[in-house]
Amino acid sequence: MNAIILSIGDELTSGLTINSNAAWLGQKLSALGIHCRLQLTVGDDQAAIVSAIRQSIGTCDVLIISGGLGPTEDDLTRGSLAQAMDEPLVQDQEALRDLEAFFERIKRKMTDNNRLQAMRPRSAACVKNSCGTAPGIIARCGGTHIFVMPGVPKEMKAMFEQAFQPLLQAAAEGVVRQITRLNTCGAGESWIGSQIADLMQRGANPAVGTTVHDGIVSVRIYASGPRDQVAAMIAEKTAAVRQRLGALIFSSDEITLDAAVTHELLQRHQSVATAESCTGGMVAMMLTNIPGSSHCFKQGWVTYSNESKAAELNMNPDLIKKFGAVSREVAGAMATLARCAARTTWAIGITGIAGPDGGSPEKPVGLVYISIAGPKSDDELYIRTCHFSGDRQSIRLRSSQMALTLLRLKLLGLDPDAILPP
Amino acid sequence: MNAIILSIGDELTSGLTINSNAAWLGQKLSALGIHCRLQLTVGDDQAAIVSAIRQSIGTCDVLIISGGLGPTEDDLTRGSLAQAMDEPLVQDQEALRDLEAFFERIKRKMTDNNRLQAMRPRSAACVKNSCGTAPGIIARCGGTHIFVMPGVPKEMKAMFEQAFQPLLQAAAEGVVRQITRLNTCGAGESWIGSQIADLMQRGANPAVGTTVHDGIVSVRIYASGPRDQVAAMIAEKTAAVRQRLGALIFSSDEITLDAAVTHELLQRHQSVATAESCTGGMVAMMLTNIPGSSHCFKQGWVTYSNESKAAELNMNPDLIKKFGAVSREVAGAMATLARCAARTTWAIGITGIAGPDGGSPEKPVGLVYISIAGPKSDDELYIRTCHFSGDRQSIRLRSSQMALTLLRLKLLGLDPDAILPP
Repeated sequence: MNAIILSIGDELTSGLTINSNAAWLGQKLSALGIHCRLQLTVGDDQAAIVSAIRQSIGTCDVLIISGGLGPTEDDLTRGSLAQAMDEPLVQDQEALRDLEAFFERIKRKMTDNNRLQAMRPRSAACVKNSCGTAPGIIARCGGTHIFVMPGVPKEMKAMFEQAFQPLLQAAAEGVVRQITRLNTCGAGESWIGSQIADLMQRGANPAVGTTVHDGIVSVRIYASGPRDQVAAMIAEKTAAVRQRLGALIFSSDEITLDAAVTHELLQRHQSVATAESCTGGMVAMMLTNIPGSSHCFKQGWVTYSNESKAAELNMNPDLIKKFGAVSREVAGAMATLARCAARTTWAIGITGIAGPDGGSPEKPVGLVYISIAGPKSDDELYIRTCHFSGDRQSIRLRSSQMALTLLRLKLLGLDPDAILPP
Repeated sequence: MNAIILSIGDELTSGLTINSNAAWLGQKLSALGIHCRLQLTVGDDQAAIVSAIRQSIGTCDVLIISGGLGPTEDDLTRGSLAQAMDEPLVQDQEALRDLEAFFERIKRKMTDNNRLQAMRPRSAACVKNSCGTAPGIIARCGGTHIFVMPGVPKEMKAMFEQAFQPLLQAAAEGVVRQITRLNTCGAGESWIGSQIADLMQRGANPAVGTTVHDGIVSVRIYASGPRDQVAAMIAEKTAAVRQRLGALIFSSDEITLDAAVTHELLQRHQSVATAESCTGGMVAMMLTNIPGSSHCFKQGWVTYSNESKAAELNMNPDLIKKFGAVSREVAGAMATLARCAARTTWAIGITGIAGPDGGSPEKPVGLVYISIAGPKSDDELYIRTCHFSGDRQSIRLRSSQMALTLLRLKLLGLDPDAILPP
């Protein structure tokens, strides 16, 4: 089976938005063993959309379209599809009822433009959108299956996985491609690469590679093979990578660092509190990202000013005077005092210099102290001195990720200094 | 003038690599006033490449090709271009000498495959590569200018800017395309669209369209015209949009909501504190994103448990017993008490149900109360009841964005209820 991906939007042709949807769909199709033979991208221009659809109909098994289903004047995909299929647009009664119910639920008035979102080519069907208002469309024309989805990535992904992937899975046969990702935090990409260099030979199957995304280094393992063998091929190579990287791996596939840490806490019925300075609430936000986190996250302080560290955490002001707000001593006190005040199993303290201002030769931008106070004894306290590079955003993100990583290793009963490269 | 961008590589069609080259080129072409009417992406497959080039020749002024110029078996662009142009491949003597000199310099043996990199269609010319081995190609066929560049982003960008951009600039004869974006928060895309529907007529120049990205609805204004007029065209249309949307617009172009709010606070030498429940620190994180925010953000509380609301904010526990932790009364008390404890000009209080669990018929998932305590009098307090749709992540994000929006409107001395749609 082969496919064409058609992406629609002026923001794509003008380069304002990078077309990550097409890459995501390409990966999904690959995994299903479907060859993407062409990607097309056109702007919000009916003639161009109609021409791209006509060019695709009859020349591929599957045409996947995303974008242009919104409620405004520049959303032209429905009309263009009908024109390319030589069919009139008709109102879909069920989709209209769903839309009306949606607006009823969020207590907003439905506009006439929203009503247009429930139109479809006569022989086509509407597909429910679980995360937004615009229904998708499924159609068949000239031997080509046509799937139309919204361009908003979250809505597109949910609709593809819920509605279209099962249909494609059933239709695709034989050789499949499977990908597994092992996610690490706490070591750089080149260090991770050096630990598994011999597993990364080019042309091997399964192939092993590394990627970095938002500070998380992932090891990807791809295998191509018969449907009944590919899982075993992946499992063997995965075991080899796990043996090398051990506890640096916090999850596989889509599981995020915050989810992995929250899971470890919930599983042990343990709780955590945070006292943050340079990360400004980011660690608390990560620890409350996951449903159910209210069972393990109790309380957070964002003590951005020196006065707030003293007033809210009952910190001895002399400590800040003597060592400075950015110091091992203050980081340690933040965790110890937060754990005590919130009566939690664990607490995290962070203080550092996120920049761009505020650095000095002794305490440069990127210097961050992270401490973990724990339950073993009243004075159990781990403190790590970190030097992060990059801009303010990445220093804040790396600091928060390192804090979660240190908490995770302590939860597992491990010594972070024995696991993380210096 | 109009252009087609053709990207070549299996890593693109399979989605392993996101096609950021096409977006970069789209922006460059827009800035030159050249309309990108189509982007095509095909794999390392000679038949597919030849077909894409043939389809483009004669249908656009400029065809920009990237990828497939390397020295390996799967680099097929040179041969495909010659085939599409019905010309033989010939050796370019100067490019060959450059290649030989390059390998001499790095003291490596030149392979036969490298020698192939100095081939070109007979009527074409080679273009020097300042950052790598593969020369580019410039050709003309069927009225279309053809520019071929390597796919490695650094080499592609350098070659485009050094060799092709000056040619295109001269050819584009002064017509340029300019884009401005006005960013709004607090109203949905369809509501924004309904306020400016008459400005969004299709085919107009400047053209007006809307996009949504991470909860922010932006109005984009594109104009094409002579270099000396386009700024005025944009300015006129921008003024018309601003007149309709007023204070809903928080910034233009790349300025984020957190930056806009931080700027308003700094400008007034005012300060803010936060008391968050369902957003778990996200508002504090946003208010500390921007360099210099330590001058206006003083302190944040993440009072996730009922006990922490009482203990840390000195909230009367009866309030929670009587009205529930998610109530107007508790939201109001959170802001008032946080402002008092942190001694700031403003404070934000948020409590709500981010889901997926914890909802009830009276208090469904998505119900969020946001309060702003202010400096006018001791009991100045604004409270808004919001109903957000979507999953946990988007409810948390929307709540945080709405909190910043409400603070922004109060900072400007405006009544949020008079500005935001109900």
